Amino acid sequence: MRVADLPTPALVIDSEAFAFNLDTMAAARPGRTLRPHVKATKCTALAREQAARGHMGFTAATPREIVGLAAAGLRDDLLLANQTVDPERLRAMAECGARVTVAVDSPETVDAAAGNGIREVLIDVNVGMPRCGCAPEAAGALADHARARDLTVRGVMGYEGHVVGLDDRAERVEKTTAAMFRLEEAHNAVGGDVISAGGTGTYDINELATEIQAGSYSLMDTAYAKLDVPFSYALRVVATVVHANAKFAVADCGLKALSLDHGNPDVENAAVWFCSDEHVTFAPRAAVRVGERVLVVPAHVDPSIALHECMYLADGPTLDADVVDRWPVDLRGWGA
Amino acid sequence: MRVADLPTPALVIDSEAFAFNLDTMAAARPGRTLRPHVKATKCTALAREQAARGHMGFTAATPREIVGLAAAGLRDDLLLANQTVDPERLRAMAECGARVTVAVDSPETVDAAAGNGIREVLIDVNVGMPRCGCAPEAAGALADHARARDLTVRGVMGYEGHVVGLDDRAERVEKTTAAMFRLEEAHNAVGGDVISAGGTGTYDINELATEIQAGSYSLMDTAYAKLDVPFSYALRVVATVVHANAKFAVADCGLKALSLDHGNPDVENAAVWFCSDEHVTFAPRAAVRVGERVLVVPAHVDPSIALHECMYLADGPTLDADVVDRWPVDLRGWGA
Repeated sequence: MRVADLPTPALVIDSEAFAFNLDTMAAARPGRTLRPHVKATKCTALAREQAARGHMGFTAATPREIVGLAAAGLRDDLLLANQTVDPERLRAMAECGARVTVAVDSPETVDAAAGNGIREVLIDVNVGMPRCGCAPEAAGALADHARARDLTVRGVMGYEGHVVGLDDRAERVEKTTAAMFRLEEAHNAVGGDVISAGGTGTYDINELATEIQAGSYSLMDTAYAKLDVPFSYALRVVATVVHANAKFAVADCGLKALSLDHGNPDVENAAVWFCSDEHVTFAPRAAVRVGERVLVVPAHVDPSIALHECMYLADGPTLDADVVDRWPVDLRGWGA
Repeated sequence: MRVADLPTPALVIDSEAFAFNLDTMAAARPGRTLRPHVKATKCTALAREQAARGHMGFTAATPREIVGLAAAGLRDDLLLANQTVDPERLRAMAECGARVTVAVDSPETVDAAAGNGIREVLIDVNVGMPRCGCAPEAAGALADHARARDLTVRGVMGYEGHVVGLDDRAERVEKTTAAMFRLEEAHNAVGGDVISAGGTGTYDINELATEIQAGSYSLMDTAYAKLDVPFSYALRVVATVVHANAKFAVADCGLKALSLDHGNPDVENAAVWFCSDEHVTFAPRAAVRVGERVLVVPAHVDPSIALHECMYLADGPTLDADVVDRWPVDLRGWGA
């Protein structure tokens, strides 16, 4: 089956670009210096490819991702880089058969982890973005509290999420340095072997982190492509033209097939006008016919994948490429 | 179980507001003068409540929605208000046991329908929004082509999607009139009993339509609430506060739990700062603690529901309300 024969809309991975992205990152951040984040891709088959390149530890954003990775046999060293106080989900992670470490940033999150079977934690530190993470000056006392609850404190975590998407590399370098100054201050007070940070935009900038939590690099999107990173588009949505006239065309790929939070997608060989629930309206550079397929590149990979049940693997980036596998998006959702 | 005891993030329907919305619409648009659109809600349990109010026909945006409605026993009169040329999906609809009508707007979509077992169509007419639909002056010839292919042409369809969201009622009235002038011109050339059009923003404005395709009215969102429609919020996301400090708090409800294409959600009793993949950062009006639940109202109901596996039904709009049922979002996705 060719990409052009798939039912649409469907996510398609170009296996060559995907392998290039994984190999490029593995050369820059070998083994445990990369802890791939599965929140972007939500797919254990994809994670196995990262493990095959030597990255044995994974980062997750939800307990379901942790439990799903463990069920798929990826149990070596899993980090929930997020806070939860849900007793059932904490216990599910504690009992999933994997080595599980969770991020904590408050006495409440420490107590919830300790009270539900979790044994190892990282102190999550706010390094500049207004989201989770304790203040750097509070990290030492929180680590003491965790140790008093018999938790092993492996180190610190701090995500420079306000930096990873900045276009200008010099600005990324400057702001990463400032963010990691805060994380280093916290680490001095906390101790431990692990300093977990970073993402696709700072994987080669962040010098403090012992491990980088990048995920989007494997598939990329138009938002990250604006940066000077060496990764290629490996994810597209194949869509069918369902209407065409002299001015514009419409394909069956709308905002239920890709997320608009980072803006409109790109349609190859076309200018996008707008997306609605089920459709993208665009001006093609060359005339298209009803029934013809087009390729669409999402602006933000993470929430776009979360809308799909599966991704198809193809042996190239075109409509003529052969479909060689089907990967379930098996880590999406949160559990019932 | 109370709403505050649900695992988060979770969609929660306030059953009282939901019943009010359905009753209010059923009074204004009784029986077959409303053809509820399931694309917004993607839930056969919810559709059954609409059928119980006398609306026996449904509108759908995907073949999966049609086949799923039929499998749930809602087979009376189903309209695919969208174009498809997929032979397998057309055949699946033709063979699903329901009365199925599909929208067509080109010779290609007519031929695909006729060639794959579909027996009834509506001519979809562009009434002002650049999306699907033929030009009004082309509708008669297209109907002739459909009849030549042994299809029954039941009438016309035209969605004034460029009008339904306009805040100003006078402007909605004026532009609906203009749009329906185009649809009436097409109907004069096509014939048939059905003039299908409209949405939640024009259900009481559109005087031409024999049936209104409203869906969002049942649950509502902050975008439609800006209009002077009599429907109430009936859908919220319950989320857990996972971080709180003196300036802001963070809950576990981000852009994988609700769609941002119509802007940020509202957090009750708070000012929203921003959403990221898994989180909403907000300034609460009164202090919140880690572990506390908050209620979040999506800006756009359709793609938010499409991110969830289920919705919970509760007997009120608060965190203390009792959860009385769980409804699967069983019509999402597109099929494998």
